[in-house]
Amino acid sequence: MTNTTNTAIPHLLVDELQARANIESFVKKAARHSLLFRPHFKTHQSVQVGEWFREAGVHAITVSSLLMARKFAAAGWNDITIAFPLNVLEAEGYAQLAGEINLNVLFDMPEQALAFREKLKHEAGYFIKIDAGYHRSGVTPQDTATLDEIISAAGPKLHFKGFLNHAGQTYNAKSREEILGIHHSNAKTLHTLRQTYQDRFPGIITSTGDTPSCSLADDFRGIDEIRPGNFVYYDLMQFQLGSCSFEQIAAAVICPVVSVYPHRNEALIYGGAVHLSKESLEDGDTFKIYGLAVPFQNEKWQAPQGDDYLVRLSQEHGILKTDSQWAKSLKPGDSVAVIPVHSCLAASALLGSRE
Amino acid sequence: MTNTTNTAIPHLLVDELQARANIESFVKKAARHSLLFRPHFKTHQSVQVGEWFREAGVHAITVSSLLMARKFAAAGWNDITIAFPLNVLEAEGYAQLAGEINLNVLFDMPEQALAFREKLKHEAGYFIKIDAGYHRSGVTPQDTATLDEIISAAGPKLHFKGFLNHAGQTYNAKSREEILGIHHSNAKTLHTLRQTYQDRFPGIITSTGDTPSCSLADDFRGIDEIRPGNFVYYDLMQFQLGSCSFEQIAAAVICPVVSVYPHRNEALIYGGAVHLSKESLEDGDTFKIYGLAVPFQNEKWQAPQGDDYLVRLSQEHGILKTDSQWAKSLKPGDSVAVIPVHSCLAASALLGSRE
Repeated sequence: MTNTTNTAIPHLLVDELQARANIESFVKKAARHSLLFRPHFKTHQSVQVGEWFREAGVHAITVSSLLMARKFAAAGWNDITIAFPLNVLEAEGYAQLAGEINLNVLFDMPEQALAFREKLKHEAGYFIKIDAGYHRSGVTPQDTATLDEIISAAGPKLHFKGFLNHAGQTYNAKSREEILGIHHSNAKTLHTLRQTYQDRFPGIITSTGDTPSCSLADDFRGIDEIRPGNFVYYDLMQFQLGSCSFEQIAAAVICPVVSVYPHRNEALIYGGAVHLSKESLEDGDTFKIYGLAVPFQNEKWQAPQGDDYLVRLSQEHGILKTDSQWAKSLKPGDSVAVIPVHSCLAASALLGSRE
Repeated sequence: MTNTTNTAIPHLLVDELQARANIESFVKKAARHSLLFRPHFKTHQSVQVGEWFREAGVHAITVSSLLMARKFAAAGWNDITIAFPLNVLEAEGYAQLAGEINLNVLFDMPEQALAFREKLKHEAGYFIKIDAGYHRSGVTPQDTATLDEIISAAGPKLHFKGFLNHAGQTYNAKSREEILGIHHSNAKTLHTLRQTYQDRFPGIITSTGDTPSCSLADDFRGIDEIRPGNFVYYDLMQFQLGSCSFEQIAAAVICPVVSVYPHRNEALIYGGAVHLSKESLEDGDTFKIYGLAVPFQNEKWQAPQGDDYLVRLSQEHGILKTDSQWAKSLKPGDSVAVIPVHSCLAASALLGSRE
């Protein structure tokens, strides 16, 4: 993935074998549980990584914007769900794309359905977004009045595909048990909704898909389709949550060491907020973590040597707390691999330097 | 600035008149205090905004990477300081650029000077980066042994231009007094360094330039050159610090309202971490703020109507806490102007959609 990249500046390095293994593992898991698998492409946003999914047998995908949907439609993907409530200002664009591919959109208000229906000249499907308790978007599951209003506003030309949600609160969970608890309660909610509506709409499905739940759960009753995305690369957050092992992490940001400051056990790397994003984890109450630096040799990153965390970031600067002997021995001109806190945001930030 | 932009998606809107006024105000302030003015272009990274500086009489600029230096050199800027310690992995590229323009580089370790000198075929200047107490990069001012080692490593072919620092800790200050205290102590340190070295190196200068200090200070004794950047747009952080009035803010991110959730006094906007960055401010101890939403009408944003803050961000989602009556009346298809917490990061994130 780095053949055409300037390796003297911060750049994303993807471990292709591991990413393909992560994909394969989810393809198998979905098959084992008879789940539809519609991976989220917002994590990598890469046509090339998309091909690895295609080679693993994936043909239906999820994205989070019309821009991304267009990009992947142009790359030959013709079954796409845009898992972001429809932006009525872009209704025309959504409607156009529906003439080119099998498009599913998302509604959580009747106004969105009306705006889309007005522009639509072709067939399209829609899901109703349900609030899984994350309180980001979605209709409260008990609010059947709004559910019915949306269905009514969508009218008969639009195909009601089912209920979709995202239990993003698993990213803030403190234990495996908490993640599985959220997952099962979420599955139960979706199951109840499907039960309630399937007489009127035979064939509707339920769709969910946060990476922590999908990685850890082994009981998917109530769920028909999963849409995880983060798992293709995983990252420090998923590792800390227990969703993956360190070995399953498939992306790192390679950063030059610019200066070292032994008197304060810190080093300056070229790698800041514009490369890694300011997504952070807390290390107890003491400081924020913006990434974990590990050795990088022969185009491969190694296991962590200690608590070698990025502890401050500004636009291009990253400050590495040098904990291990390895980190303390770094010098200008070395490169380190930084395991990002959130691979989706790091990959998005670095997209320009990759494709 | 938005003529060629898709206004149905998040995009940066720059108030050209206000940005030009901010530039003009700093040009005058620098002249009033007989300061060299070398504004930092990392904030806007825009060739077009650069022209506004040129029209105001600016001819020397600061950037924070070789990439940016090349971009502005290509746009006709021929006096550039790269205010980031030299990345030895890019020494060849720095040396090439020194053959095309008047280039100043930055050292805080002798290794950087040696690496640059080895590749250099033309003339170039260098500053020594001093740690202003921000502890991001730079030599501790008392560490004259390292200062002398750097000068010795640079050798006679490289022109020693002086001492440069950045008191970035002013961004975390709690009051105007604290900012001015940092500024004066910083100026004194630089003055002492210049005194110590000017017999050996006549003509060396001192250079500093955080926007809070440069905005608030009226005493620049000890300082020869200022390099602020953020002031061209200012932002919510600078407003909160007291560096600017609300009227001086010259950039906002225009975001579509996608859904509203009156039962929880929240709205979903299309505008997330990839548009605004995850830079945040704290509102007491209660929650984080990722931006302030204000009305947007007739291509202009208005004064704040209340505490209408973005309180959560994910990749494309922004959650707006609807405090004011205006915010509570928003509906899908409306647009809001979001005053970003940090305009440098928002402008960088949105660069692709602007130029």
